[in-house]
Amino acid sequence: MLHGDLFANSREEVNTMQLALEERKTKQLPHGLMWANVFRASGKFGLEEKVIPRAGVGEAVIQVRLTTICGTDIHIVRGEYPVREGLTLGHEAVGVIHELGAGMTGYRVGQRVLVGAITPCGQCEACLAGDRSQCGGALGGWRLGNTMDGVQAEYALIPYAQANLAAIPESLSDAQVLLLADIASTGFAAAERGKIRLGDSVAVFAQGPIGLCATLGARLMGASEIIAVDSDPNRLKMAQRFGATTVVLSEGDALAEIREVTEGRGVDVAIEALGIQETFERALRALRPGGTLSSVGVYSGHLQVPLDAIGAGLADHTIVTTLCPGGKERMSRLIRLVRTHRIDLTPLFTHVHPLEEIDQAYKRFAARADGVLKVAIRIS
Amino acid sequence: MLHGDLFANSREEVNTMQLALEERKTKQLPHGLMWANVFRASGKFGLEEKVIPRAGVGEAVIQVRLTTICGTDIHIVRGEYPVREGLTLGHEAVGVIHELGAGMTGYRVGQRVLVGAITPCGQCEACLAGDRSQCGGALGGWRLGNTMDGVQAEYALIPYAQANLAAIPESLSDAQVLLLADIASTGFAAAERGKIRLGDSVAVFAQGPIGLCATLGARLMGASEIIAVDSDPNRLKMAQRFGATTVVLSEGDALAEIREVTEGRGVDVAIEALGIQETFERALRALRPGGTLSSVGVYSGHLQVPLDAIGAGLADHTIVTTLCPGGKERMSRLIRLVRTHRIDLTPLFTHVHPLEEIDQAYKRFAARADGVLKVAIRIS
Amino acid sequence: MLHGDLFANSREEVNTMQLALEERKTKQLPHGLMWANVFRASGKFGLEEKVIPRAGVGEAVIQVRLTTICGTDIHIVRGEYPVREGLTLGHEAVGVIHELGAGMTGYRVGQRVLVGAITPCGQCEACLAGDRSQCGGALGGWRLGNTMDGVQAEYALIPYAQANLAAIPESLSDAQVLLLADIASTGFAAAERGKIRLGDSVAVFAQGPIGLCATLGARLMGASEIIAVDSDPNRLKMAQRFGATTVVLSEGDALAEIREVTEGRGVDVAIEALGIQETFERALRALRPGGTLSSVGVYSGHLQVPLDAIGAGLADHTIVTTLCPGGKERMSRLIRLVRTHRIDLTPLFTHVHPLEEIDQAYKRFAARADGVLKVAIRIS
Amino acid sequence: MLHGDLFANSREEVNTMQLALEERKTKQLPHGLMWANVFRASGKFGLEEKVIPRAGVGEAVIQVRLTTICGTDIHIVRGEYPVREGLTLGHEAVGVIHELGAGMTGYRVGQRVLVGAITPCGQCEACLAGDRSQCGGALGGWRLGNTMDGVQAEYALIPYAQANLAAIPESLSDAQVLLLADIASTGFAAAERGKIRLGDSVAVFAQGPIGLCATLGARLMGASEIIAVDSDPNRLKMAQRFGATTVVLSEGDALAEIREVTEGRGVDVAIEALGIQETFERALRALRPGGTLSSVGVYSGHLQVPLDAIGAGLADHTIVTTLCPGGKERMSRLIRLVRTHRIDLTPLFTHVHPLEEIDQAYKRFAARADGVLKVAIRIS
Repeated sequence: MLHGDLFANSREEVNTMQLALEERKTKQLPHGLMWANVFRASGKFGLEEKVIPRAGVGEAVIQVRLTTICGTDIHIVRGEYPVREGLTLGHEAVGVIHELGAGMTGYRVGQRVLVGAITPCGQCEACLAGDRSQCGGALGGWRLGNTMDGVQAEYALIPYAQANLAAIPESLSDAQVLLLADIASTGFAAAERGKIRLGDSVAVFAQGPIGLCATLGARLMGASEIIAVDSDPNRLKMAQRFGATTVVLSEGDALAEIREVTEGRGVDVAIEALGIQETFERALRALRPGGTLSSVGVYSGHLQVPLDAIGAGLADHTIVTTLCPGGKERMSRLIRLVRTHRIDLTPLFTHVHPLEEIDQAYKRFAARADGVLKVAIRIS
Repeated sequence: MLHGDLFANSREEVNTMQLALEERKTKQLPHGLMWANVFRASGKFGLEEKVIPRAGVGEAVIQVRLTTICGTDIHIVRGEYPVREGLTLGHEAVGVIHELGAGMTGYRVGQRVLVGAITPCGQCEACLAGDRSQCGGALGGWRLGNTMDGVQAEYALIPYAQANLAAIPESLSDAQVLLLADIASTGFAAAERGKIRLGDSVAVFAQGPIGLCATLGARLMGASEIIAVDSDPNRLKMAQRFGATTVVLSEGDALAEIREVTEGRGVDVAIEALGIQETFERALRALRPGGTLSSVGVYSGHLQVPLDAIGAGLADHTIVTTLCPGGKERMSRLIRLVRTHRIDLTPLFTHVHPLEEIDQAYKRFAARADGVLKVAIRIS
Repeated sequence: MLHGDLFANSREEVNTMQLALEERKTKQLPHGLMWANVFRASGKFGLEEKVIPRAGVGEAVIQVRLTTICGTDIHIVRGEYPVREGLTLGHEAVGVIHELGAGMTGYRVGQRVLVGAITPCGQCEACLAGDRSQCGGALGGWRLGNTMDGVQAEYALIPYAQANLAAIPESLSDAQVLLLADIASTGFAAAERGKIRLGDSVAVFAQGPIGLCATLGARLMGASEIIAVDSDPNRLKMAQRFGATTVVLSEGDALAEIREVTEGRGVDVAIEALGIQETFERALRALRPGGTLSSVGVYSGHLQVPLDAIGAGLADHTIVTTLCPGGKERMSRLIRLVRTHRIDLTPLFTHVHPLEEIDQAYKRFAARADGVLKVAIRIS
Repeated sequence: MLHGDLFANSREEVNTMQLALEERKTKQLPHGLMWANVFRASGKFGLEEKVIPRAGVGEAVIQVRLTTICGTDIHIVRGEYPVREGLTLGHEAVGVIHELGAGMTGYRVGQRVLVGAITPCGQCEACLAGDRSQCGGALGGWRLGNTMDGVQAEYALIPYAQANLAAIPESLSDAQVLLLADIASTGFAAAERGKIRLGDSVAVFAQGPIGLCATLGARLMGASEIIAVDSDPNRLKMAQRFGATTVVLSEGDALAEIREVTEGRGVDVAIEALGIQETFERALRALRPGGTLSSVGVYSGHLQVPLDAIGAGLADHTIVTTLCPGGKERMSRLIRLVRTHRIDLTPLFTHVHPLEEIDQAYKRFAARADGVLKVAIRIS
């Protein structure tokens, strides 16, 4: 067993971990077994041997080629978001189909596919009503690495696979499409749910990977002024590359800057991409009357809505929160944006690690060290 | 001058007030003067003589026939919502056109018209963007009885009159259409902004006049279950008359009742029609994942959004706040609903007073005395 | 074998038919066999013995309790809409679950369910994009009685059953919900796709069962004037019962009447519910500039759009065509409207026949004889 | 008087015309007079002296700096679109405010402004309902150069000026914003009314100035595949510059090409930007089931909708027609897209003429000679 040392693993655990690491590097597991990155307890996770899953009715097993680490994974290993012990982590994957369960049609073993972070069934009342991310109940569409084993493993079981395997054109690399699984789908959804219209002014608060994709989404949807706000100059540089027309380093002046850029009007749409009270509130204050706050941050505390920021409830505001949209139609649609060169997300991959170094990858990503934005995990 | 005695007018003031009352009852004012109900200071208001306004470019003067008192008027006279001293109160009026300013076309003096609470100009950027209630700036569409003299007077100046005078069909009485000016337009907007779809389940929190109209709006838009919540059994009876399919008296059980009625799903749309944290929070908790909270309450304190009620920001919720829509197209559209017998708002008028008794009308309405819902003020 | 005698069956065929009829009435079929109403050739159809289907992966078999005949079925037996010979007809059914295939969850044998005319898979790109009626390709969501055996039979195989079985509350009868499967879902969709808003003026051309449901849909969505047009006075009477505020018998004057009712404006939404050039064109001419023509008619010839009726392409019109929406969420949503007494479709059932009299039922329905609107076929 | 010689002016007329031309070039008109390009009769138009208009209530007079010729102007001078004789042509203008009528606020004489082709009043029922292009009646928003004197003149009267003068930032030239007045607003509206979503496939039929702007609009709204179809290789080159990802020269293969590019699906949105049956029909056939045809062409004959192209009315299609959106909010919104470098329309200006050469400009533009796309007319 191989623990990540994100926090305090004991000496013994670290030794075991390094042993497992060597093992993964040097030896082939027995037939039917695989390596998987498993949550053990708050602060503890690492590679373990698991049985390769088998595909049941309507399911598929994929051999994972490339995956990545999400901010939510960090929350999980820190014990801030509860999942069961022993769960394989990860919810973004490019893989090839290893096995197809009964009832699957239109796919073949060996086919390369993208699987979204959200895997809706397509057949429950929520899905049929269009609320696929809330499949079967609140947040229910997020299964991989949350309520069932995830994809930071050599193989992964994909539920409702008929609705969730998106074919990848040969011309595109794994790295070109992997980030569509979650952060691009989420960031773009921030723009879409904000209903950005041609010529709208938009402010995006926080320029982590999702915020950067929200900035790109605002650009894709035809915003005019796109004001990106972050405390990290490097991220603001990337924001400009992703379409920001104005970047604001010091958050203290963000609202004044937004007022100036919009000639006092405020923005039509403000996007919150961090998940804290401060940015939520600023986003709200940045809005014009009648504007929309589109929130994709994951919050960890109650939110306060200041009375004056909403005109006592009379300023015709809209606040929307959004969980990543999934399903193969969503994935295919985003893949088309890559194929037609409308978007290129590869600059977000600042680092690559093989699966056996996943603990280092977590460490780097969690610490925001070395200018990291996203870390690709190469598995096969 | 005639003060309302909502709070503590001095003996002298009360005497003066009664004198004015007699005057209004018995004597004709000199030519060019009129009686108007004027805000004096926190807790003080009453009838005063004012000069009959003259219509400038694009304006009209109407002779008011019927007006009413709004919850906002109560906030104003209590000093809770700031307006300038000397302002004539009131923002809902049926009247006849007394004078038409330069540039007005398609109207004639003597024509009976309905004027909405919100009088958008139609020509500023906000109006042209469809945000007419935010005309010229936050809450800017609300002028009458707020930023300019209102309609609790014998005559009233209507700004941007070309956009704001709705002709009333002869077959309809003043009382049949007056409440379209504000509470019906607002209550229906709660349903419309909630984007209620055929068969949706809807909960409406608070069944004051606006909440009742929201209940009616939900019915008009094709909701299936319509759950009305209030602490007053009489209001719940009226809610049933206005379309509620379930009424919940004890608010303590409202969420359980909603869960039961919706078989555990929660409602698709929850409407907040009171303006306090408790109902806002309940409305949020009543929602299914992906549902919409439509708020038309006027709040007087910061709002808190509990983390769990929004699934940490991941439950795809929408929160919209709405100020009453105005303009003559809105008024005409709602008048058509009366004319075709789709709606009858007259049951909301529980009391009628002549203008000279407006202080009593305020008193009764503010105290929610005598089962009052709305008080009609007959002027001419 | 039992032929319908809609057109010219030979004497011999009629004899055989009557024999089969007796058989169905008097004898139990061998285990594993059932009666089904089968399309034989243009003008020929009738009851035949078939093997009771078995449920495969994700499928269910229902024992049909109540079904009905649709205008499309008439097109089929007349040879106007091509289906393969030997196909069981019918696409509207209330039944009880007889068998559940692998992968089905949340249902039990014996449960009473409503199945929509359209049975989307929920998992293809079209379904995931929200175009469920176009599941897997143009018109692909319509399978029952079109591309696979239908439900005018003692048992029927339901594809993608996880997405298509809607539980029926005990309090509701079969007849109360059956028409939700197609005509109400279609008629309401005409109103929904027309995006009728509160207070809109609406005209509905043709008041057959679907047109009547469109009229009801317009009422449910809050239209003010609802102008129903048909050549049959009885249908116009029903239209009034279903919500029409104006009925126009002579189609020759329909446009003049619409202009008068709308004071020259034209309607906001016009619904075509017949499928011929004449009504399509009238619907278009009935519109105000910027209005929407919502078409649910099934056409049998090319349509012409007169230049003047669309202002040379500059009048901001919208034309939408709609195939019945399906899926269990749609069915459940409509069932809620019945349960809350918002709608009652049973007046449309003017006649009932047992399965063995289905030929008479077709005959009556095809001839519009005896004031027929819809014929219920009772099976078990 | 100066006639254009688009068709057959008599020798005498041509002589007169050349005289006027000289006059305009060499002499100053008496105070209060101006030159205007006037429609005389079918095939005849030219510069005439007119009285400089005066601004009435709510109006403004602008001194025109830059205008252009629209395809509609060609229709008018050819007698294909009826306007009254003596009307000044033209509906796209950058000018400076020369006079402000009573009731105008927030503007100053000398201010540079953009005026849209459509000048809605903002205050009629159509405008207040959001149908501003249909202001006051069908096509009613189009006044300039249609129902009142246009802007191909030294001065022009702007109706409802409060709603129709958009300030131009100093940093932008006249030529950078002029085309927002009509063709960009129309072309973008084609994309907007088509409700293009991120990743949609779009085909644009015809790549004249409006079609090119529709192509650009599709790109601005986040389409993936953008397939531009035209018979002119030069226009297809420009289409690529404006965002087309695939260009199809031979219209004969357009549908096959579209099927290939979309892997058999068809496009989500097809835009018709020419106004003839052939492109309309192709656009319809290019659609996937459930797709939208967005039409901005001006048609001159009845349109036919082939039965098979709409699946007999069951393929869930939407067809929208659109007249150019106007009003200052629209203009300001589009100006922001120029200011933020999202769009650059100046490549469309292939030629510039002074007002005195407007006949040559018309001739060149009408003949599509010299690779002309748009001709700028410089006036002051």
